[in-house]
Amino acid sequence: MMKKIEILKEKGFSDKSFTKLTIQDSLYLRILNFNFKAGQELPIHSHDVEGELSILVIEGSGEFLGKDGLVLPANIGDILVSDISEPHGIRAKTDMRVVVTIAPPL
Amino acid sequence: MMKKIEILKEKGFSDKSFTKLTIQDSLYLRILNFNFKAGQELPIHSHDVEGELSILVIEGSGEFLGKDGLVLPANIGDILVSDISEPHGIRAKTDMRVVVTIAPPL
Repeated sequence: MMKKIEILKEKGFSDKSFTKLTIQDSLYLRILNFNFKAGQELPIHSHDVEGELSILVIEGSGEFLGKDGLVLPANIGDILVSDISEPHGIRAKTDMRVVVTIAPPL
Repeated sequence: MMKKIEILKEKGFSDKSFTKLTIQDSLYLRILNFNFKAGQELPIHSHDVEGELSILVIEGSGEFLGKDGLVLPANIGDILVSDISEPHGIRAKTDMRVVVTIAPPL
């Protein structure tokens, strides 16, 4: 089944916490959109399962977070690819939208 | 293994044909960046295998193409999710960058 989502017209931002939209959740792919207000973050975490994920910045800028204090600039068009089992996180410096893709879904 | 790619600093555009960058090609995910000059397209095609793909526009605008002549506007932040076995394609109206994610890889 084919479907199109206009991410910029879906979830907005919230002062309370980042917002999350599930775009796809199937046998093959989980695709999520997270929107962060400046200063908000998805803290470093990991899951002890097989598989990989990508985090792609589509608006704004911030930082990708990794293990041992790793901090990488995260600007529009930057994509992080990681094992699901590796520690990863995101911190927003400006209002920031990212798309996270997970395969296989947890 | 964690890696970061700055898509906007990688492949440019070509007058001859769209350009393609392989960002990831593992057991779990294939992630590709396609850059189209205005007017270029990835013609409608499909593969008779299980799995799904997403096409996310990160720069410029154009159209997602589907079966039976389906044409959907494709602007920044728009994402198309499709079975790999369904006909799909992309046509650029302006210079346009997209990220295609395929799971499982063909």
